[in-house]
Amino acid sequence: MNRSEVLAAAERFATDGRGFVRRTPLWKLPGAALGVACAEVWLKLEHLQVAGSFKARGMYNRLLANPVPESGVIVASGGNAGIATAAAARALGVPCEVFVPTVSSPAKQAKLRELGAQVVVTGAVYAEAFQACLARQRETGALLTHAYDQPEVVAGAGTLAMEIEEQGGEAPDSVLVSVGGGGLIAGIAAWFEDRSRVVALEPELAPTLYRAREAGAPVDVGVSGIAADSLGAKRIGAIAWDLAQRHVRDALLLPDAAIREAQLALWTEFKLAVEPAAALGLAALQSGAYVPQADEIVALVVCGANLDPASLTRS
Amino acid sequence: MNRSEVLAAAERFATDGRGFVRRTPLWKLPGAALGVACAEVWLKLEHLQVAGSFKARGMYNRLLANPVPESGVIVASGGNAGIATAAAARALGVPCEVFVPTVSSPAKQAKLRELGAQVVVTGAVYAEAFQACLARQRETGALLTHAYDQPEVVAGAGTLAMEIEEQGGEAPDSVLVSVGGGGLIAGIAAWFEDRSRVVALEPELAPTLYRAREAGAPVDVGVSGIAADSLGAKRIGAIAWDLAQRHVRDALLLPDAAIREAQLALWTEFKLAVEPAAALGLAALQSGAYVPQADEIVALVVCGANLDPASLTRS
Repeated sequence: MNRSEVLAAAERFATDGRGFVRRTPLWKLPGAALGVACAEVWLKLEHLQVAGSFKARGMYNRLLANPVPESGVIVASGGNAGIATAAAARALGVPCEVFVPTVSSPAKQAKLRELGAQVVVTGAVYAEAFQACLARQRETGALLTHAYDQPEVVAGAGTLAMEIEEQGGEAPDSVLVSVGGGGLIAGIAAWFEDRSRVVALEPELAPTLYRAREAGAPVDVGVSGIAADSLGAKRIGAIAWDLAQRHVRDALLLPDAAIREAQLALWTEFKLAVEPAAALGLAALQSGAYVPQADEIVALVVCGANLDPASLTRS
Repeated sequence: MNRSEVLAAAERFATDGRGFVRRTPLWKLPGAALGVACAEVWLKLEHLQVAGSFKARGMYNRLLANPVPESGVIVASGGNAGIATAAAARALGVPCEVFVPTVSSPAKQAKLRELGAQVVVTGAVYAEAFQACLARQRETGALLTHAYDQPEVVAGAGTLAMEIEEQGGEAPDSVLVSVGGGGLIAGIAAWFEDRSRVVALEPELAPTLYRAREAGAPVDVGVSGIAADSLGAKRIGAIAWDLAQRHVRDALLLPDAAIREAQLALWTEFKLAVEPAAALGLAALQSGAYVPQADEIVALVVCGANLDPASLTRS
């Protein structure tokens, strides 16, 4: 996984002709506008991506880069990866099966069906749904998409970093990225390498990369808390681990309270309606977990907006 | 009112040093992404402006362009103009009195107080609150801001059009703008003059410009419906009328149902949480009220986000 695979993904998106992947806006603000003592904060508004998160980039790249059999595409996910796969499959006119555990929300299942996916509800937890998905894949030969640990998925996510650099006119000094399974930060690290300081942010209650760094290798962690819905992978992906070892400078943990405060501030002060996972960057800056230099340009990736808007009302 | 006053406002914002007015993103999408048969749709995401609407530009320009007396600033408004005035006054550290009628929502009154404004609740309807505001202004000598019918307020709004042209790299072929009192469209018409086709959009239930064009002069109209909260001026402003006569090509009416559909689509398909007034542009395109040419670049002004996010849940 390197820059050339990110470039290849961007080329696929550009020549595909369907315009499925959106070029999302980069919003440049003076640090002071966010109460942060740095030169500029760049918000990459990737929550405006089709299907409501950055995942569409990776899933679409996976589908474009591989022949899709008659049986279509298959994925195990009750969250953004499933929604993105279903949307990508619909755009390409291929069938899509999504395996979700029985605990997944009826609202998300309905969203998947609305996108034309065949939803299979099975298994008490995600791991069981995933096993059932793999068994089914062996049976049908459908193209499997993984939420984060496939090269095409990581490269697709990397196109977001390429856009930040194009839209910003330069690489930012630092990029703050939320980490679950690590697909997003892997793509960003693959693009920027060491030209920007790539910083991993995780909820204290879902610390896959943090614990892997402590242990010296990926390990299973318990996941819970406000952002578990989208950052709730149990273990950092192998591709992400490799790229993080090479190019991720820091891994910081944030308490749920700071994440929730930042999510509410993004709504009340900036009218950005985002899910908790997308608020870790502002949480890191506002809580002082990450302290930029005075002349620093910090980029934050606002990565998803699959939320119930009513949850933005302070209660 | 002309381009040079818009340039003067932009110059004030740039040299002010406080960075109060935000440069909001321009989001370029292929028409197909919105299901519209035109080359490009540009969304000016002005709902991300400080205080949640374009009004901050005009109010801040009014305050910067005039000496503010010890008694501060005064305004009659239960909506976005009041919130923007209070925010602008707070940024400049001057006192602010806001007159609102008894019908105004407690939530908006609370928001005004949160911004440090002295809130005076008086009069059954807006016109009565406005009269009380004028009487008080004569007493204190405070600087009066008007929601739409002052040159500085119009010129401030015009800076948004200047940004569209800068960010887009050219003037769009057309600009679709929601109209209440007309401050926004007046500023936009002052900037683009006849270089873009400026199109006025109004709810059927709040047709100030449409009825004025029928009558050949501004007339009072009844206002109600989904967007009355922010587009509910009773009569088009004198400055707006003058500029509209010269530079506004069409005035189109939209039913509330189309506005509501577009508001929901902006949320579900684009994750933009906006108030009904900000959805008229998409409503015009999706309902066929405005039909662009195949090679046209259409700019929409997404003008405000002062809404209860729970209202975005389809019910």
